[in-house]
Amino acid sequence: MKKLEQISVIGTGLLGASVTLAAGRSLPEITTVAYSHRPATRRKARRLSVADIIADNMAECVESADIVILATPVSTFEQIFRDIAQILPDGCIVTDVGSTKALAHRWAKNFLAANVSYIGSHPIAGSEKRGVEFARDDLFFGARCILTKTAGSNLNSLRTLRHFWSSLGCAVSVMTPPEHDRIFARVSHLPHVLAAALINAGSPEQLKFAGKGFIDSSRIASGPANVWTDILITNSANISKSIEAVIRELRRLQRAVSKKDRSQIEKLLNRASSKRAALIKYKMRKNELL
Amino acid sequence: MKKLEQISVIGTGLLGASVTLAAGRSLPEITTVAYSHRPATRRKARRLSVADIIADNMAECVESADIVILATPVSTFEQIFRDIAQILPDGCIVTDVGSTKALAHRWAKNFLAANVSYIGSHPIAGSEKRGVEFARDDLFFGARCILTKTAGSNLNSLRTLRHFWSSLGCAVSVMTPPEHDRIFARVSHLPHVLAAALINAGSPEQLKFAGKGFIDSSRIASGPANVWTDILITNSANISKSIEAVIRELRRLQRAVSKKDRSQIEKLLNRASSKRAALIKYKMRKNELL
Repeated sequence: MKKLEQISVIGTGLLGASVTLAAGRSLPEITTVAYSHRPATRRKARRLSVADIIADNMAECVESADIVILATPVSTFEQIFRDIAQILPDGCIVTDVGSTKALAHRWAKNFLAANVSYIGSHPIAGSEKRGVEFARDDLFFGARCILTKTAGSNLNSLRTLRHFWSSLGCAVSVMTPPEHDRIFARVSHLPHVLAAALINAGSPEQLKFAGKGFIDSSRIASGPANVWTDILITNSANISKSIEAVIRELRRLQRAVSKKDRSQIEKLLNRASSKRAALIKYKMRKNELL
Repeated sequence: MKKLEQISVIGTGLLGASVTLAAGRSLPEITTVAYSHRPATRRKARRLSVADIIADNMAECVESADIVILATPVSTFEQIFRDIAQILPDGCIVTDVGSTKALAHRWAKNFLAANVSYIGSHPIAGSEKRGVEFARDDLFFGARCILTKTAGSNLNSLRTLRHFWSSLGCAVSVMTPPEHDRIFARVSHLPHVLAAALINAGSPEQLKFAGKGFIDSSRIASGPANVWTDILITNSANISKSIEAVIRELRRLQRAVSKKDRSQIEKLLNRASSKRAALIKYKMRKNELL
């Protein structure tokens, strides 16, 4: 396993700055370097001391890194890979914290050089908040982190990354990029689309009567629209399929409700509540609901 | 306005028992009486002292009441109205805490006698928990409570009920039963249906990777299936329309995602997040997010 001396994060939003803060806390011997393309954000990041070094340009950020972590929207990865390909030191591990993985792997294959290796990371952590000021050094405690690898992935880099995320408090799982994108379309991207559709289906006058249930079930729709647009675009086929699947379930409930078919409605609602009970039980056992 | 000496609650679940507990706290001069048709629940209610008197039968519960509050599933109201019609004292106000209102008004009109008056109540409070053991005397603090009246409603009873729910900490709104059922199909019953459809659209293996967003947005699906079946059946036409409306929004998002139409996706997501921001702002101003 590679010995880590420096990790470098491109992007100092909630996730990026939380990575450097968490690494500074859990792996204090490592130098943390961060870069944002916005001067005002770099100043804020310096003032909040979210990393040991806030670099003034991307080259300075990555040139001595053992691990480079992209924490910018997925659609920026292609250009960033092109920009840093010639600067990365030999043996550097490149990863990211993006929510979709198939495109990232394709771009890495096309634009990174053979002297570095790419593995995808997706820590299941975050919030509807955004910006460096919401970064927290405990954001990854108890979170799951998915690593994505392909047939050609460097297993030593995989081990190193697994160690890195574990040190930050994550429970690590490994899967392929297509598996990842299929699963997260269903459990993460679809809920976001549903929350947005729910809100958009109501008028402001109706929404005034919303209770706690509505507020909670729509919370994720307050996430940053540009980041989510990126996620939906970079996983469009899977998301379209997931929307189709949920519409099938909605039609099933709608038919039962229209027919006032008590036993069918109760069956569908019971199926949902018992699946959720099993999920909560699983998460409690895994300590993922802290 | 009527002077209140006794309120009687039929049903000692989370809501019913919270009404007597809250009344005991906020209106200590009033006698609170509660009844459950299950002997074991009556014993539990006595042990937890959720009311001054736990009656052993419905007649004993309601015969001296100034206000009778039904806190059982909506579909039971028809039979309960028939059962108590001849026992209620002159001038008694009958209400309920059910989530749909049109049917309750129809049944009240058909089965209650002319010596009592019915007004619907819907306190927007509760939880996915159920049962007398989760009752709280502060459940209604800061909650909105909708009262429903028709052209023939007794305005004096309306004033009395408004005073009662305000004393328990509610902000009271008044509307007609059809208005109520249309609005709550959209902001309460639809979110429940969506949460159930979201869970049912995923396999247990996929759900294991659910994060905090999924957990929060599906919470309401853990509510009691029999109560929710009742709500969906007693408001079926409005709920079917609301499902249709949300499917329209989902198709709109699906089209934009399939075409990778960045500006259209971002427009729809931004519409949702700004509508939600306005909603949160409104709720904060009204102190309804305590």
